[in-house]
Amino acid sequence: MLQVWLLVDLDSDTSVPVFQVCEWHSPEQLKKLLDLELRDRGEPESEILQRCRDAIRYSVKTSHPRFFNQLYAGMEPYSMVASFIAEAVKTNLYTYEVAPVFTLMEDAVLRKMIKVIGWEEGGDGIFNPGGSLSNIYAVNLARYRYCPDFKEVGMFSAPRLVILTSQEVSRQSRVTELRLSRVFFRGRMIPSALEEKIKLAKSEGAVPFMVNATAGTTVLGAFDPIDEIADICEKHNLWLHVDACWGGAAIMSKKHKHLLKGIHRVDSVAWNPHKMLMASLQCSAFLVRDKTSLLQRCHSARASYLFQQDKFYDVSYDTGDKSVQCSRKPDAFKFWLMWKALGSRELEQRVDRALAMARYLAEEIKKREGFRLVLEPEFANVCFWYLPPSLRNLPESPELWKKLHTVAPVVKQRMMKTGSMMTGYQPLGEKANFFRMVVISPQVSRQDLDFVLDEIHNLGKDL
Amino acid sequence: MLQVWLLVDLDSDTSVPVFQVCEWHSPEQLKKLLDLELRDRGEPESEILQRCRDAIRYSVKTSHPRFFNQLYAGMEPYSMVASFIAEAVKTNLYTYEVAPVFTLMEDAVLRKMIKVIGWEEGGDGIFNPGGSLSNIYAVNLARYRYCPDFKEVGMFSAPRLVILTSQEVSRQSRVTELRLSRVFFRGRMIPSALEEKIKLAKSEGAVPFMVNATAGTTVLGAFDPIDEIADICEKHNLWLHVDACWGGAAIMSKKHKHLLKGIHRVDSVAWNPHKMLMASLQCSAFLVRDKTSLLQRCHSARASYLFQQDKFYDVSYDTGDKSVQCSRKPDAFKFWLMWKALGSRELEQRVDRALAMARYLAEEIKKREGFRLVLEPEFANVCFWYLPPSLRNLPESPELWKKLHTVAPVVKQRMMKTGSMMTGYQPLGEKANFFRMVVISPQVSRQDLDFVLDEIHNLGKDL
Repeated sequence: MLQVWLLVDLDSDTSVPVFQVCEWHSPEQLKKLLDLELRDRGEPESEILQRCRDAIRYSVKTSHPRFFNQLYAGMEPYSMVASFIAEAVKTNLYTYEVAPVFTLMEDAVLRKMIKVIGWEEGGDGIFNPGGSLSNIYAVNLARYRYCPDFKEVGMFSAPRLVILTSQEVSRQSRVTELRLSRVFFRGRMIPSALEEKIKLAKSEGAVPFMVNATAGTTVLGAFDPIDEIADICEKHNLWLHVDACWGGAAIMSKKHKHLLKGIHRVDSVAWNPHKMLMASLQCSAFLVRDKTSLLQRCHSARASYLFQQDKFYDVSYDTGDKSVQCSRKPDAFKFWLMWKALGSRELEQRVDRALAMARYLAEEIKKREGFRLVLEPEFANVCFWYLPPSLRNLPESPELWKKLHTVAPVVKQRMMKTGSMMTGYQPLGEKANFFRMVVISPQVSRQDLDFVLDEIHNLGKDL
Repeated sequence: MLQVWLLVDLDSDTSVPVFQVCEWHSPEQLKKLLDLELRDRGEPESEILQRCRDAIRYSVKTSHPRFFNQLYAGMEPYSMVASFIAEAVKTNLYTYEVAPVFTLMEDAVLRKMIKVIGWEEGGDGIFNPGGSLSNIYAVNLARYRYCPDFKEVGMFSAPRLVILTSQEVSRQSRVTELRLSRVFFRGRMIPSALEEKIKLAKSEGAVPFMVNATAGTTVLGAFDPIDEIADICEKHNLWLHVDACWGGAAIMSKKHKHLLKGIHRVDSVAWNPHKMLMASLQCSAFLVRDKTSLLQRCHSARASYLFQQDKFYDVSYDTGDKSVQCSRKPDAFKFWLMWKALGSRELEQRVDRALAMARYLAEEIKKREGFRLVLEPEFANVCFWYLPPSLRNLPESPELWKKLHTVAPVVKQRMMKTGSMMTGYQPLGEKANFFRMVVISPQVSRQDLDFVLDEIHNLGKDL
């Protein structure tokens, strides 16, 4: 196993200090450093090896314990080994015939995730290249259940379908072209507002058919109250999908699974183990409670060259027809191997640790002068403003917020150029730019979190 | 560089003869061999290492020179090294800030592909997880160009849009829910029939807005006459998309690029370098001739936590908003590194070699008793029937074809159980089950192709 690590060690370049998260160059500078042009003649191995070293050197070190920029971070060695094996055996997961091992592993992982969710009668699922696609799958299935002959009759004779949603789902709507109703976005969905919206849509002659709730929003890490939403969906016979791409990991923890209370009642879940559980990119599961092959019936294209019905084995193991994209990487293997090596208990401890570290960071922020929480975190997202000394004595006013809005982008620029750490920032609604720290990796220590606050102060105190 | 190969060498298991393409076990048997269950407690490293060995052992050896089952095959070592690096640096390709190197490499590869296609004024593009998604992107863009306010007005006030297509595109339609017109599927699109269909649709009050042509169909390897179709699309102002996922590689060859004559006139192209050019899975490009940011305008969701407009660098390098799925793997790197190492000339030679080998196979089939070509191949797909001696003297009759239909599945079963080779079979329209050989890898020799025909005869002569 250790030999696999040679590749990573191989390319450590002693001229770059190991503590840098990134070595910033502008696109124009980096283009010159990389010599990107593709030519008629190839290059000798020694130059290709240098290209590999350069690719690693100038890439952001997302496994660095001071990388907090996205909803993924850190390096899970078992999962990385699995991803190397998956690359080397070069498998496309559409039929059992070409992917016997990974087909069964995907099935085993999906079954286990379904069990953890609490669908006692089982369910179905598929791994997708990213959570956005899983959410699109949910829209497809909800619509298919509502109107199975959609494809035959076309959009034009169908009723005016409406999805009710908390978090932004405009990507899905861009593909599926359904009317969205999205009013009650204030961190979390308000059940009474949801029910009003359903009634309003019906009174306008539209047909609400689906609610899209979120477990762990991207910026704030907010959880919609699934149990209460499920009550409403049952009453109105709506498909309830939960985008738990980010927050799904909480279900592994006895201490934190209450965040997802009611998830055993929903129709479908998107959950990305490549986020808090640290499986290699990408590892995104779509899970559905249905047991009537809805996934296959909705997406089947019956390609005669893949899904022959006169095969000599049980063709229900040919899962490719459940997907929109047909060709799929064996992403489940990356989660299966690490789960096998770590066990559920270690996964649980990692979740608990990440949330304890987030809690530590939030408490530190409350203690420190010049730092202010945007809101009390309920998950691993810690959102806060940094006020440089020049702003600390200004009264609360639009002018203060206007000035504060310009602080985070400058601090971000400076941290990128220093390479000391990376964290995200963004505005949200009326709120001025704030930092979003996301604590995931078990490699992160309290010292790293103290460093983050010290460094933001150092980089921004003159502003 | 050689050290990377340790991983692959590491897992060769001397108890499995090296010449086996696969070691067949039924799903039930394999489940027992793999111990798939995920438990509370993890397993020690020695057991995990055995799990890795087992995963490799029981997986199909798609890099074996006698694997002809899909439109991918063989191992391209440079591309595999790139895929290992991409896994190790764990990058998501949505912003320049987190993916500086791979953003620029994707841009460089896309520009080069656009140049090869012959769009002299440039264009735009993006790598996707698979060709089906690229084809969906084409539908989105064509529709967006026709009706930019689609999302705002919704499907229900839009006209009845129609796509005209040759190859099966039901996957796209399943997602996009557009009316398809697909009558002229007979290997290749018939331009006069296309124009008739356009007129018919218009006379029915529908709005044809897009033609989907195919360069290299999956089963037969047929090429639609792009130049003639482009004439019709220009005349009727229709978006012309070419699904060149499989056949796109021909454009690298001076000898064979005539197959794609007219491709410089089309609006968009899907081209998968993971097929004939052998980049690691997955490597799928979507290319668009538009220079007005259509891709971004159509798909943008403007996530505030990724695409801040107050960043300190040129945010046009943040490509994530061009995609539907947002998170993307740096697939372009896998093609960039191999192109850099091999040069365009070696890529050209590989295409020429693959097509020469396919031609050799077709000629052998014509020479051998009991083998019959389905049609003269124009690309790397060689489709043929094998008639066991018992069928050779039967007159042409429905009964002969009915018997012949049962031969390929049995031969396939026997070759899987022997593990000696893998090739696909399928029916097509009225045609009885036939074998489809696809010759891609430069590792394949004439001896391998002779073996294939000998082996099919050996496995099926008693039928």
